[in-house]
Amino acid sequence: MTDATAHSPLPAPAAGLDLYDTTLRDGTQREGVSLSVEDKLRVARRMDELGVAYIEGGWPGANPKDTAFFARAADGELALEHATLVAFGMTRGAGRPAEADPLLQALVDARTEVICLVGKSWGYHVDEALGVPRAENLAMVADSVRHLTSLGKRVFFDAEHFFDGVARDGAYAREVVTAAAEAGAECVVLCDTNGGAMPWDVAELVGGLVHDLPSSVGLHFHDDGGCAVANSLLGIEAGATHVQGTANGLGERCGNANLFTILADLQLKRGLRLVPPDRLERLTEISHTVAELCNQTTPSVAPYVGHTAFSHKAGLHASALAKAPDMYQHVEPEDVGNRQRLVVSELAGRSNIVLKARELGVAVDDEQARTVLAEVKRREAAGWTYEAADASFDLLLRRVTGSLPAADEPFRSRHYRVSVAGGADEASAATEGPAEAILAVEVAGQRRLGAGEGNGPVDALDRAFRNAVNGTWPQLDRVHLSDYKVRVLEASAGTDAVTRVLVTSTDGVDVWDTVGVHPNVVEASWLALSDAYTHAILRVHWQQTAEV
Amino acid sequence: MTDATAHSPLPAPAAGLDLYDTTLRDGTQREGVSLSVEDKLRVARRMDELGVAYIEGGWPGANPKDTAFFARAADGELALEHATLVAFGMTRGAGRPAEADPLLQALVDARTEVICLVGKSWGYHVDEALGVPRAENLAMVADSVRHLTSLGKRVFFDAEHFFDGVARDGAYAREVVTAAAEAGAECVVLCDTNGGAMPWDVAELVGGLVHDLPSSVGLHFHDDGGCAVANSLLGIEAGATHVQGTANGLGERCGNANLFTILADLQLKRGLRLVPPDRLERLTEISHTVAELCNQTTPSVAPYVGHTAFSHKAGLHASALAKAPDMYQHVEPEDVGNRQRLVVSELAGRSNIVLKARELGVAVDDEQARTVLAEVKRREAAGWTYEAADASFDLLLRRVTGSLPAADEPFRSRHYRVSVAGGADEASAATEGPAEAILAVEVAGQRRLGAGEGNGPVDALDRAFRNAVNGTWPQLDRVHLSDYKVRVLEASAGTDAVTRVLVTSTDGVDVWDTVGVHPNVVEASWLALSDAYTHAILRVHWQQTAEV
Repeated sequence: MTDATAHSPLPAPAAGLDLYDTTLRDGTQREGVSLSVEDKLRVARRMDELGVAYIEGGWPGANPKDTAFFARAADGELALEHATLVAFGMTRGAGRPAEADPLLQALVDARTEVICLVGKSWGYHVDEALGVPRAENLAMVADSVRHLTSLGKRVFFDAEHFFDGVARDGAYAREVVTAAAEAGAECVVLCDTNGGAMPWDVAELVGGLVHDLPSSVGLHFHDDGGCAVANSLLGIEAGATHVQGTANGLGERCGNANLFTILADLQLKRGLRLVPPDRLERLTEISHTVAELCNQTTPSVAPYVGHTAFSHKAGLHASALAKAPDMYQHVEPEDVGNRQRLVVSELAGRSNIVLKARELGVAVDDEQARTVLAEVKRREAAGWTYEAADASFDLLLRRVTGSLPAADEPFRSRHYRVSVAGGADEASAATEGPAEAILAVEVAGQRRLGAGEGNGPVDALDRAFRNAVNGTWPQLDRVHLSDYKVRVLEASAGTDAVTRVLVTSTDGVDVWDTVGVHPNVVEASWLALSDAYTHAILRVHWQQTAEV
Repeated sequence: MTDATAHSPLPAPAAGLDLYDTTLRDGTQREGVSLSVEDKLRVARRMDELGVAYIEGGWPGANPKDTAFFARAADGELALEHATLVAFGMTRGAGRPAEADPLLQALVDARTEVICLVGKSWGYHVDEALGVPRAENLAMVADSVRHLTSLGKRVFFDAEHFFDGVARDGAYAREVVTAAAEAGAECVVLCDTNGGAMPWDVAELVGGLVHDLPSSVGLHFHDDGGCAVANSLLGIEAGATHVQGTANGLGERCGNANLFTILADLQLKRGLRLVPPDRLERLTEISHTVAELCNQTTPSVAPYVGHTAFSHKAGLHASALAKAPDMYQHVEPEDVGNRQRLVVSELAGRSNIVLKARELGVAVDDEQARTVLAEVKRREAAGWTYEAADASFDLLLRRVTGSLPAADEPFRSRHYRVSVAGGADEASAATEGPAEAILAVEVAGQRRLGAGEGNGPVDALDRAFRNAVNGTWPQLDRVHLSDYKVRVLEASAGTDAVTRVLVTSTDGVDVWDTVGVHPNVVEASWLALSDAYTHAILRVHWQQTAEV
């Protein structure tokens, strides 16, 4: 994990435009994304490291998890370097004073400097979904904003369904946003909640509101028409100074505007300095890490940060690429921490290896860097990835360069057999007995046999290994797996595709990630586990070396 | 597969805008896409059924596969209903008359009515990559166009790198496109080859050329800045009458403009009648089928055609959705052949269950809905999730309400044992032999035993099951797993935490998701697999029921 202090300090305030990250709220509406409080803290820290201005943490009071997140943040556990944390919630309920609204009180109790309130701006929704008189909806908006500002909060107002509202009932939609702005909302955010706004809808409308409203104007687009990023850019050109989006465009249905794409477009193509260049250089890494935390992958075709975003397949490009990369690339991949990939031919990137090796305290010369790079390429082509598996990369580097000769490996895996029974029916599978493993490893020239029973094949292997090496490395006692992720690659080939296992291990203080790839999920798991143990056993020694 | 003849005839010519499909050329530049001639014929027929105006088949003469494709097409094997087939190629070589250029001759030999020629329009490329005098490049363009039109061909001209060329060397780029148009190109296509054009670059530039050029103007965008669709739309608003794109946005790096999104945006939101409505209703099916042919999957978040494009997660929406679907949807999902999906989660209320049941064609009364909800909540507390597992929810619903009594289950799982060996070392694990499974299921009261070998325990189980039920349900032959995801819950407990497996299955047209949860990853996988098989076996019957 890179030390954030090694990077440039972030400007405050940002260059006339605020990036507002709603991954932790809108992003989690993506099917299959379910973040623990711990996950939420980790995602927030990553977005903070990138340098966004605001991080929306969720809806305190709406569910226990979000309430717990804000409590831990308020207790100093989040420790954001730069970003301002925002609590999200709804305007007061109908027919109830703002002061007595329990949901607004929960927002206050979240102890953030900024609160983002959402309210209805489409008359149809006020009539049919909310079922309150339109005047009351206006009062709900204004009262809620006034109440929170009177308590010293800075308030943003998300005008839900604003683009649909304007299209079908323009006067009322404008009344709502005007009410919010006049009541003291610092920023009024025009939301395309259903995601169907088209680029021709944006510029004039946003420009008009930038002119008319006493507040600043923000944007919140969804991608149902495939235009969320472009709509955001067009709105910013028209004068909006706040833009909401999510990491990798996570979000309900087709997703939210991809904040990473917006950032890179504006900074590299519009000349806005939203984050220091050395932060932008971490974009790819942050994209992939946040995706992993959300149990997703960054799509390989994602602009800027995707695995293939700077891939060149056509052989005829290669020489031109070497001579003048700007001929075939819209930006420099290094500016966003990505890299050019050529399907044929050797390429630059050796300097990356040298830098990374230096960071890990391993000396590599030019020839070794070339060998490492070739090995990385060979393995990446077979499905390995080192982006989210630093500890495995570290081992690869040491093995290929000879800094970890085979003779110094703490153990050598010899054989295992795992057996699993089940299938009787869902409830009674436990009666089938645990998974069993028998494992042979070689330690200091001696063959050691271990047996393990566990809840599954990986657990059984883990126990068998510990049984086999029992007592040899006491530091292993403190180590346990904190996460285990499996992904099938070349997915359309089904179960006989290659399986990639990522294992996160911890001793309670440090955390390290390892990777294994194999057609067999058990073998892939074992490869990742082996690296995790080896790292656990050797890292104390390496840390001393690296510090010298 | 739907019979194309059952659909409306296609208008000729289309409504002032031509959709030009380049899936078979630019789309195949996507890593991992490699189409046989047969595949290419099938993709072309699908795009034709949708109703695009032009289908670019590839580059005859550049490789034997494309040459064979055009030969078979010319022999009548392709039999397009509506679209015009286009052959793609380069302008003549430097210093050689067009009449004597073998590549141009190969284009002529492809026997298409239309030829699309690509030429350089960025001076920098002419100087550095091509290395010919700029005047010669102009002559290469004009001569080639004139030569082909003199032979009775209709010619389109793809102005490569036009947007970069204009930005850095505008006068020359304009000279090139003018030369092509004046030489007789019917359409001059402005290509954003490197994909970095921003929406603010498009309207004025395209509008100016629409005014200035004697030809019509086309567009060809790539998605490196995340704006390919919006840029296409903006260019069309500015007067372009031809737009190039690919199925599902397939293409090199970040992909090409997604022709499906452009079509739906223009037809449903701009009122252009590009294809008959009953063709547009096949968009989702065609998207998924073409993706399969290309060994890809349609991303679940793809606008209009993705699996989650019309999914609704939040419980509070459900009652409003039933009352007025246009409140929460930018278009009617049926218009593009997709469907609304309610995502069931612990946040859902009873009304969500009732609606979801109605969607699935299962009658549930209030009391049953309460029971189902209680069961969903109980299971979610134990780690199950139905958000991304529609098919498992469907089965849960039917089982809990008695609509699928135990006696009607197609099979009952009895027992399995799986054995995996490995660990020798990374490279030689294959010599340990495959994973082996033995599985017993009960079908119609009879115990059936099956054996399977596979690359891993899940693969082995899958094969053992198919072996056990061999031939009983032929529809299973078309079913395969397209994705497999594993997540460890309560991750801090390490490998003995609960494991959640999500399995995506497909028969090439439909896609369904199932879930299994168990401490043992193999058992969790088996539970998800069982549901996937049960769904595959019973769904035909249920679909009929739902239609009644």
